[in-house]
Amino acid sequence: MATIVFCSLNKTAQTTARRCSMSHLKRLASSRGLHLPVTLLPGARWFCRGSSVRFMSQGTAGRSAAGRTRSGALALTGAAALTAAAGAVVVGLLANADHFQRAEMATKVSPVAEQEGDILERCRGFMSPPVTDVGVLQQRKEEMRTRMEMLIMQTQADFCNALEKVDGGTFKVDRWKRNEGGGGISCVMQDGKVFEKAGVNVSVVFGNLTEEAAKQMRSRGKVLKGKDGKLPFCAMGVSSVIHPKNPHIPTVHFNYRYFEIEEEDGTKQWWFGGGTDLTPVYVNKKDAFHFHNTLKEACDKHHLQYYPDFKKWCDRYFYIRHRGETRGIGGIFFDDLDTPSQEEAFNFVKSCARTVVPCYLPIVSKHLNDSFTDEEKDWQQVRRGRYVEFNLVYDRGVKFGLATPGSRIESILMSLPLTARWEYMHEPAKGTLEAEMLEVLRNPKEWV
Amino acid sequence: MATIVFCSLNKTAQTTARRCSMSHLKRLASSRGLHLPVTLLPGARWFCRGSSVRFMSQGTAGRSAAGRTRSGALALTGAAALTAAAGAVVVGLLANADHFQRAEMATKVSPVAEQEGDILERCRGFMSPPVTDVGVLQQRKEEMRTRMEMLIMQTQADFCNALEKVDGGTFKVDRWKRNEGGGGISCVMQDGKVFEKAGVNVSVVFGNLTEEAAKQMRSRGKVLKGKDGKLPFCAMGVSSVIHPKNPHIPTVHFNYRYFEIEEEDGTKQWWFGGGTDLTPVYVNKKDAFHFHNTLKEACDKHHLQYYPDFKKWCDRYFYIRHRGETRGIGGIFFDDLDTPSQEEAFNFVKSCARTVVPCYLPIVSKHLNDSFTDEEKDWQQVRRGRYVEFNLVYDRGVKFGLATPGSRIESILMSLPLTARWEYMHEPAKGTLEAEMLEVLRNPKEWV
Repeated sequence: MATIVFCSLNKTAQTTARRCSMSHLKRLASSRGLHLPVTLLPGARWFCRGSSVRFMSQGTAGRSAAGRTRSGALALTGAAALTAAAGAVVVGLLANADHFQRAEMATKVSPVAEQEGDILERCRGFMSPPVTDVGVLQQRKEEMRTRMEMLIMQTQADFCNALEKVDGGTFKVDRWKRNEGGGGISCVMQDGKVFEKAGVNVSVVFGNLTEEAAKQMRSRGKVLKGKDGKLPFCAMGVSSVIHPKNPHIPTVHFNYRYFEIEEEDGTKQWWFGGGTDLTPVYVNKKDAFHFHNTLKEACDKHHLQYYPDFKKWCDRYFYIRHRGETRGIGGIFFDDLDTPSQEEAFNFVKSCARTVVPCYLPIVSKHLNDSFTDEEKDWQQVRRGRYVEFNLVYDRGVKFGLATPGSRIESILMSLPLTARWEYMHEPAKGTLEAEMLEVLRNPKEWV
Repeated sequence: MATIVFCSLNKTAQTTARRCSMSHLKRLASSRGLHLPVTLLPGARWFCRGSSVRFMSQGTAGRSAAGRTRSGALALTGAAALTAAAGAVVVGLLANADHFQRAEMATKVSPVAEQEGDILERCRGFMSPPVTDVGVLQQRKEEMRTRMEMLIMQTQADFCNALEKVDGGTFKVDRWKRNEGGGGISCVMQDGKVFEKAGVNVSVVFGNLTEEAAKQMRSRGKVLKGKDGKLPFCAMGVSSVIHPKNPHIPTVHFNYRYFEIEEEDGTKQWWFGGGTDLTPVYVNKKDAFHFHNTLKEACDKHHLQYYPDFKKWCDRYFYIRHRGETRGIGGIFFDDLDTPSQEEAFNFVKSCARTVVPCYLPIVSKHLNDSFTDEEKDWQQVRRGRYVEFNLVYDRGVKFGLATPGSRIESILMSLPLTARWEYMHEPAKGTLEAEMLEVLRNPKEWV
């Protein structure tokens, strides 16, 4: 695979980089479990964030990580559905703009985007530099795709930091490129103290879609007209699945994503999707209330119908039809959101993304030291098996990802648990806590 | 679910039954791990086979087993694709034939079918009475569907007996009915001494297909014309997946099946399908040679092109596309076989079915006491994860089964291992035995 550095480093980033000594970098990188070649590659870039350093070599993630090289990479989990062809690369064109143009564009930054803070300053807190070059992000600061990329990077960092704090372990950060345009950052912690497997994935991909693929991307199946049948698109999202070791700490999943497609006449179609849902092994009404209520409060700030509608959608979506049971106790799920305005839809998604830590971490902390039996661990493993069944059989994002040549499989299947179990004819005895859990999965409840 | 006893017991079976005392039966049934209600139901039927007794209550398998009741049941794994509507039940009609008709039909038994032995005598050796009533089988002894049902029942019994002998454990026998017509017998041994999970499943289903569903059933997609769009069909098969505990004993899978569809003008379309394939955790050339050579010898007796063609088909079919690797080291796979004649095709399938024990058991015995490390067990678990990926994402039979309302999910998913593992970015180091295995899975070899 001939990986091409997508955008060259801008001056500011290079300057920042020089502030960190090579030895300091190596030490920190190795403490984070990053896959580094023994010698730091020339052109390696990183970010300093207090005493913490994030590192990756440019465009070699998949290779340096495990010797596995794939031609191109696509890992949009959740309900993202994309078929990407090489072609006009929007960001690439922008990257070729000269300094004058950049300066002119910078003056056009909207007041709202301005409030979101300085791009470079914010990037320092991320798990890795964003997929799109920082210079490019700064140039088009006011564009939704930039604001969304900053939001998903921020969400990844906030969530990873919170999980690292409670676990004591560190995330392995893999940065990968997609030949056809874009790439991603996969953060995975495996076999930690608290978490059996924790993955937080960002991807930002772009290129051209066929009209058929574009139609498939929208859950409402709108017909989109492309120039010569081709539609330039951009899709990005953050997705995460956390499988803890203790069966009294539930599994959580979230995914927030944004799509843009440009039609023949230049009009841009855009929409958001996302959701957060909880998969406990045992029913805990207080946890369920806390989780759903945190989501409801975030939704209610934007529209009183959002929580009830998106709660129902979530129960419908995460349904293991062949088992007649939901995957977990739900949360919210929405797709194809393009109302009431781009600004308001983004603000809603921002509110949702900001709830992932307060939704989940208090539940983790509460059960951190809960004792459990072998039988409880076995039941967790059986439920993990059902999780695998949902993800491989029904999840639209996984199905699409697996069917797309050039996908980054490891990022797509990061959502699978470290271990799972399938017992023939497993059925909990009546009156047990396991039977109580099944009853809830078979008949979704209102928790708030 | 209102389960109806499919066919009443014929006199001979009733007489046989009376020979066994109730207490003897209970003791034996419990020693076989059969799901029995505490009190034996009136109308319960069984077969004596030396000192061994097979038992099941009529039409209550799913219920008595674990309190789970499903409306109807369909579990044809492998490449069976069926959509069944309630309707004209061929066997049901035959069951209503009076004694005169029965006697008349019995005289028409073909010399070939006659050679296969007495139906009732053969049934005594089965894991359970066949799905179709013994009296009905006796009446239509010469029909292919009878001969095939006897063959799949025999294959199930032979394989289960061989596995029980080497493991020391016993198979749990679940008999289930499908409301729309037919049923099955699932034999599962879980957490044995040698086998982590061993499943051997027989199903015999019939009813009416839509023209669309009938088209899907045939891999060559032939168009079939039905009366008012409906096509009476009959489908049956035996399928098995064996997951041993020791990573040096490979997993084996086989499936042999037969289909019949009646067209508008009364002509019957029929075809066979099947195959046997091996999934080792480590490469063992001698085992691979033994396995493939046993299959080749069986194939060569019928057509010299069968082994090379069906070996290639097997490698193509059991391919995990998103991983770029086959599930195992293959074997043979074929579908839609309707040449050179029904008799010859059946004889070929019979030869194949008879190889399952000699293909696999010598390999099991050879490695029974092989020692293994934790790392080898981990690698086995990672390979089990890939097995799950193939079965849930690609296997046509599983996909169809899960998508069909009224399927018996536990029989379909019996093929999943007891335990599996997904490690992020797992890649064996160069030069290891694990890397050698992967190399073989990425580039299928000729073993004979």
